[in-house]
Amino acid sequence: MRPAEAILPAMTEPNPAHNFLTLMPADEFRALLAAWPRLPAEEADLATAHGRFLADDLSAPEDLPPAARASMDGYAVRAADLFGTSESGPAYLEKAGSVAIHEPPTFALLPGQCAAITTGGWLPEGANAVAMVEHTHDLGAGTVEFRKPLAPNDNVLLRGEDATKGEIALRAGTLLRAPQIGLLAALGIRAARVGRLPRVAILSTGDELVPAHETPPPGRIRDVNAHALSAMVREAGALPSMLGIVPDETPALAKALGAALADHDVVLLSGGSSVGARDCTVAALDSLPQARVLVHGVAVSPGKPTILAEANGRAMFGLPGQVTSAQVVMHVFVLPFLRHLAGACDAFSRAAGRSAVLARNVASRHGREDWLRVALEEREGDLPLAHPRLGKSGLLRTLLDAQGLVRIPATREGLGQGARVEVHPF
Amino acid sequence: MRPAEAILPAMTEPNPAHNFLTLMPADEFRALLAAWPRLPAEEADLATAHGRFLADDLSAPEDLPPAARASMDGYAVRAADLFGTSESGPAYLEKAGSVAIHEPPTFALLPGQCAAITTGGWLPEGANAVAMVEHTHDLGAGTVEFRKPLAPNDNVLLRGEDATKGEIALRAGTLLRAPQIGLLAALGIRAARVGRLPRVAILSTGDELVPAHETPPPGRIRDVNAHALSAMVREAGALPSMLGIVPDETPALAKALGAALADHDVVLLSGGSSVGARDCTVAALDSLPQARVLVHGVAVSPGKPTILAEANGRAMFGLPGQVTSAQVVMHVFVLPFLRHLAGACDAFSRAAGRSAVLARNVASRHGREDWLRVALEEREGDLPLAHPRLGKSGLLRTLLDAQGLVRIPATREGLGQGARVEVHPF
Repeated sequence: MRPAEAILPAMTEPNPAHNFLTLMPADEFRALLAAWPRLPAEEADLATAHGRFLADDLSAPEDLPPAARASMDGYAVRAADLFGTSESGPAYLEKAGSVAIHEPPTFALLPGQCAAITTGGWLPEGANAVAMVEHTHDLGAGTVEFRKPLAPNDNVLLRGEDATKGEIALRAGTLLRAPQIGLLAALGIRAARVGRLPRVAILSTGDELVPAHETPPPGRIRDVNAHALSAMVREAGALPSMLGIVPDETPALAKALGAALADHDVVLLSGGSSVGARDCTVAALDSLPQARVLVHGVAVSPGKPTILAEANGRAMFGLPGQVTSAQVVMHVFVLPFLRHLAGACDAFSRAAGRSAVLARNVASRHGREDWLRVALEEREGDLPLAHPRLGKSGLLRTLLDAQGLVRIPATREGLGQGARVEVHPF
Repeated sequence: MRPAEAILPAMTEPNPAHNFLTLMPADEFRALLAAWPRLPAEEADLATAHGRFLADDLSAPEDLPPAARASMDGYAVRAADLFGTSESGPAYLEKAGSVAIHEPPTFALLPGQCAAITTGGWLPEGANAVAMVEHTHDLGAGTVEFRKPLAPNDNVLLRGEDATKGEIALRAGTLLRAPQIGLLAALGIRAARVGRLPRVAILSTGDELVPAHETPPPGRIRDVNAHALSAMVREAGALPSMLGIVPDETPALAKALGAALADHDVVLLSGGSSVGARDCTVAALDSLPQARVLVHGVAVSPGKPTILAEANGRAMFGLPGQVTSAQVVMHVFVLPFLRHLAGACDAFSRAAGRSAVLARNVASRHGREDWLRVALEEREGDLPLAHPRLGKSGLLRTLLDAQGLVRIPATREGLGQGARVEVHPF
């Protein structure tokens, strides 16, 4: 750690070796991350596969439903037999039998016949529609009255309507949530190939830091980022390891980064991009045998001093030390990157969340992508108002009070009050 | 299991004992669930507390920040010393020293003095603002030039600005996500009291079901709900146990429900609200010594046959057997209920997700709350179009293709094409 006066001059001069002032455009940074090779796939049972991304297109091994089934309680019929039926001109069909839900019908339906059927029952051969029980009347003696006409396939789940044998039922990169897990179960698939979950090492650097469970002496503060970044990594479905605080010195950093890269897919170093530590971080990375610094500085606010390096296919991020800046960089770049590694398709182009109306003018610099924290004010019958939480990025409050982020593209010089914006939820 | 013909007549006549046709309004059902006693709280470390709900208001044990800190690199000053300063009329201050980030300043700032300071450094006594280094020029020989005026507190994080000692920093019922975990870490709090996670038993009933890993004989289908509901319970943060398939007979159901209630907070029985099984379910519940059936039938679509019973403070839901209806009832009622049990405040009044424009007219019945599955079509510069996925609730496809649910309140008789709607995301 160098004293402040030794550090300050470095800010005003570009470092020719690393071109800190040549910032990478945000879109270029995203493209670089989106081109990173994904982690290998592994087999997982349904409970383990839940919440993960399908590695390959998945073909249906059979038709689903395996046969035409009733989607209502009532009577299976031939739709043609009810042609022209009405309240004043009902049709009368002979009850040929009834279909239990757990056994396929043992009879076929002849013209003029119907069969009682419960929801889920297989249609007898010859039947092509189901009349809802509410529109019928059992007259007894094997005769049923029908008061409404039906079109073929009415109230019927068609064979293969959910999935057709041999066709793709789910695409590679699909997030397996409850409906997808349900589809896998319905198809009798007991395990799926999903992307491996990224193992993420979390290191903090900065001589002012003490572990969060310690009482800091005057001048020092607790390491907030280790805990907050771990939580974010978990929320993205990945596996965080908190590796502690590393001194702000090149040899110690190089040793810690080298050790972390050995058994993690991604290393996050927070604090390593602040003015002084940034030099240490880059020097430490340069000293690692296989590491290449790919990015040092991104045209984004907050998050300008973000560093990205690669070593044997693994990624190392230097994140801002400011807690809120670090969390914004995580939301905008690192969490989509973790989902991409885990197999997500289009991890960086996910649809935004809520639409809102900007509550005030916000200036921005052309060429720089800005991410505003916004607090939403609900309005009855109208889109919510998005209040920018500007200012001090050292304050946790600006994140605690906000519900999401609004992007100001690099091509804009700000957004006006009243502009419709998309809020990316936290 | 009774044959279909024995079941059908029951649909058209009300069961006087249970008033199946007296449906509970959806709002009343929500109010009943929201009044359920929450689960007891337990102590959890930060990693375990993450994703859970704070049980009590949390007071800050200390001021955060503990002292005024610089939020920028630059020079700590007395703002009054820069009054009237401009590019053409700069001020010159004497450099009294520099503040390292990891040690508090050992000197006070006198009028006419400044001190070099890095982001995060504590302000010396007497200083009340920080001039950004970009707006200064170190002339050497202990003199610094300032070209912009400052207001008091500019570029300063004030003592207690994030949290004030003894005041409430986080309210009971708050979901502890990354920013909240960061705040706890910053305050030196190592463990928090959070609501216990609900243990949820999942049972399926229906003679047509076989376990998902088996090949169903003709007429039968795999048990999809066990897997899909487990996934949904996990997504709500609770702990599912799949207890398997129970025969559609009162004694077997009573035994299975009694066993499940013994060591779970919530029991979900799917299929138990279909026409025939509904009677069995209610009979089985009536036969359990401490159980009371509170609700049998809700004025909601889908989900009308939903059953709710209570036994020793534990909740038992009878869910529709149709896979999509069951998942909608989970989203609308059961998942908010699980979050409520776990300590969430306002679990049933969470803000909707995205705003959208309805793509077509949708009819609804007055007095019944409808939940439409919708697929969103993105539109450049406009709200997305919400296409209702109507129809066959036995089809998984209607959920796989949808992004969320739109509520049609019980007071409406449908929504018109072009209406602005709020989409509750899955």
